[in-house]
Amino acid sequence: MRIYDIIEKKRDGQKLTKEEIDFFVQEYTKENIEDYQASALLMAIFINGMDEEETVNLTESMAKSGDMLDLSAIDGITADKHSTGGVGDKTSLIVAPICATLGIKMAKMSGRGLGHTGGTIDKLESINGFNVSLKTEDFFKQVNDICVSIIGQTGNLAPADKKIYALRDVTATVDNISLIASSIMSKKIAAGAKNIVLDVKCGSGAFMKDKESATLLAEMMVKIGKKCGRNMAAVITNMDIPLGSNVGNALEINEVIDILNNKGDKQLRELCIVLSATILSISLDWDYEVAYKKAEQTIIDGSAYKKLIEFVTAQNGNEDFCVAPVSSKSLEIKATKDGYIQSINSRIVGESAVLLGAGREKKTDTIDYGAGIVLYKKTCDKVSVGDTIAILYAETDERLKNAEKLFNTSYTIDDEKPEMKPLIYKTIR
Amino acid sequence: MRIYDIIEKKRDGQKLTKEEIDFFVQEYTKENIEDYQASALLMAIFINGMDEEETVNLTESMAKSGDMLDLSAIDGITADKHSTGGVGDKTSLIVAPICATLGIKMAKMSGRGLGHTGGTIDKLESINGFNVSLKTEDFFKQVNDICVSIIGQTGNLAPADKKIYALRDVTATVDNISLIASSIMSKKIAAGAKNIVLDVKCGSGAFMKDKESATLLAEMMVKIGKKCGRNMAAVITNMDIPLGSNVGNALEINEVIDILNNKGDKQLRELCIVLSATILSISLDWDYEVAYKKAEQTIIDGSAYKKLIEFVTAQNGNEDFCVAPVSSKSLEIKATKDGYIQSINSRIVGESAVLLGAGREKKTDTIDYGAGIVLYKKTCDKVSVGDTIAILYAETDERLKNAEKLFNTSYTIDDEKPEMKPLIYKTIR
Repeated sequence: MRIYDIIEKKRDGQKLTKEEIDFFVQEYTKENIEDYQASALLMAIFINGMDEEETVNLTESMAKSGDMLDLSAIDGITADKHSTGGVGDKTSLIVAPICATLGIKMAKMSGRGLGHTGGTIDKLESINGFNVSLKTEDFFKQVNDICVSIIGQTGNLAPADKKIYALRDVTATVDNISLIASSIMSKKIAAGAKNIVLDVKCGSGAFMKDKESATLLAEMMVKIGKKCGRNMAAVITNMDIPLGSNVGNALEINEVIDILNNKGDKQLRELCIVLSATILSISLDWDYEVAYKKAEQTIIDGSAYKKLIEFVTAQNGNEDFCVAPVSSKSLEIKATKDGYIQSINSRIVGESAVLLGAGREKKTDTIDYGAGIVLYKKTCDKVSVGDTIAILYAETDERLKNAEKLFNTSYTIDDEKPEMKPLIYKTIR
Repeated sequence: MRIYDIIEKKRDGQKLTKEEIDFFVQEYTKENIEDYQASALLMAIFINGMDEEETVNLTESMAKSGDMLDLSAIDGITADKHSTGGVGDKTSLIVAPICATLGIKMAKMSGRGLGHTGGTIDKLESINGFNVSLKTEDFFKQVNDICVSIIGQTGNLAPADKKIYALRDVTATVDNISLIASSIMSKKIAAGAKNIVLDVKCGSGAFMKDKESATLLAEMMVKIGKKCGRNMAAVITNMDIPLGSNVGNALEINEVIDILNNKGDKQLRELCIVLSATILSISLDWDYEVAYKKAEQTIIDGSAYKKLIEFVTAQNGNEDFCVAPVSSKSLEIKATKDGYIQSINSRIVGESAVLLGAGREKKTDTIDYGAGIVLYKKTCDKVSVGDTIAILYAETDERLKNAEKLFNTSYTIDDEKPEMKPLIYKTIR
């Protein structure tokens, strides 16, 4: 088999066989195929597309390119929840305790933030003492004992995806549904959970800019997961505006605590219950309405909050929930006219948080856990001159000033009250 | 300007500006753009295409990437003839003396053979003493004195094309009309001649497999040349079967001598007169019929043959036309049944010649000038069992045996007399 012939075939719009896709993925991972040949093939795939079978084969091949996590040491039903990346998205830290409370085994590996989107591992590390690097046996033991553990990615999960993604990133071949779907799903398949629920974001802060393309991506990923023997569902949600009120690591942990204490942003609470209910219903074959009620009840009766504390302390986090203090300097953003907030561009809010020190522009940047943004007004809220729209937190005045300039471009105020968009568009199963 | 944005634009089927094409060509030549980005762009160009304006801009940009030959030191009208590559194609060595006899200044740079196609420079070097490496001033002086000189490519003509072609060759992005046309024409434009006639081959031995795609390529190249201020024409010819009877360097020189002495293959003679007449008519604005008669006359009266000798001796070639002796060993290919030759696949004949030692598989291979094939029967010829179809020449029995095996797959014999295809399909001006 020669890579030249595979490139030529896809260039001419033909379908690649499982063997051809395997050859490309395995040999490219071993560096037996040159980058310039891989990028020519990826461009041909981008333009001419891959069908469902090719996409499934690409996913499985990338999943098998490294370690395949074996969760058989965990007794019971394993589940995983994955978000395609959002701003202010702390749902994993709420959903995991809810589902664990109801007996689902949440053995989750998470990533760090890059660019305008945050990462669950960074958020957890803003809790004093929290250990994200458990050994695999300790990870399994904790999940068996208390049903939940979240750690940083260990081992060598889907190295082919890592290498291919890095190449796509510099050759304008990222935004293709088959390539995005196989990239996300290869890691999920390698991570081993039997039940997988995806939160597919669309809007200004997301990969997919509109509902239609997010739906296509979600459908593709659900199909891939099912072909790989997993129970699947995907919830399509709006990422035009940031999720909840807080953006920034310690600030988001505070919001997690609020939600599990029956307080905080109603939309965020609703999404967390929907995601949890979806996991419960596909994992346990529960009726969705029943699952929804049971999930909600864990918040109302405080059992999910107790589970959060159990989980945090099991991984050495400070028992009394001492998260990193919020940064020492702050700056209030005030309304300069009367009217309604028309929209808040979540990508710009995410980028403002990076300028404050809450995220990374490149992988090697260090994070200020206390930095971030608290939004006091969101889309559709009425404001008068002088009302506080948001407060920015950072360690230096320079960061505050740079972020203020950018943040002020993220929203507009006008007389008319805009139509409220739903946060949750639909669920695909 | 960023290469990423240029890739993205072409990926999405948009038209590239002159500035964007220049940026790609110049920066890639300077190695400021990575191979994997260039190959992604080339694949996007391959699939989504380039329009005429983009192709002209690409050609001019590649022509300007290195030395632009200035032929102003040559008095009179300069012309160049270029073939897209054939098997047994010795037309340059016949056309150049014919046109020079009639006063056209044939200042020609030629290449060496690679793969199944031969090169004019290799053929000339099979003449004892022939010098293909004249200094530029001596090259110009000879053209001014006797109207003709052929040398190997000197200087740094269109280095961008060289670099881009090498990348296309390993990424399945060769067979695109815009890329082929700009590659050929960038070198012709940089080589400086005012009048350019192209021999565009189609069929089994050529880049373009059918008449239709050869016509499209020819039309594109004629348009490019005109936009670059040259007088242009292209003749579309059949390369299903080898040109003439002889394939191999010294053997082809012998055939050149035959043709210019009013002997030899009629189709080859006809093509050489047509190409010469086309050059004469676009260069001197002669009526084509007049040009044809004058060109033919130089063969009939021996003046073109005299010019050939003048040209060869001016470049130190042996006066009595002592070409390299034909290889010491030979093998006769005989018909094993009665019937008509149905076809002779010229690509396979070219590859057989390479096995005999007449060509190169890789650039560093050395050539046996005396090796090659003489065809005694061609398509439509009647044969009886035992008739000689061809004689193979090489220095070793092993080479003869390997080539025999391959050569025997190049033709078939059957009862029905096949339809004779014309050698010359049409001329585009």
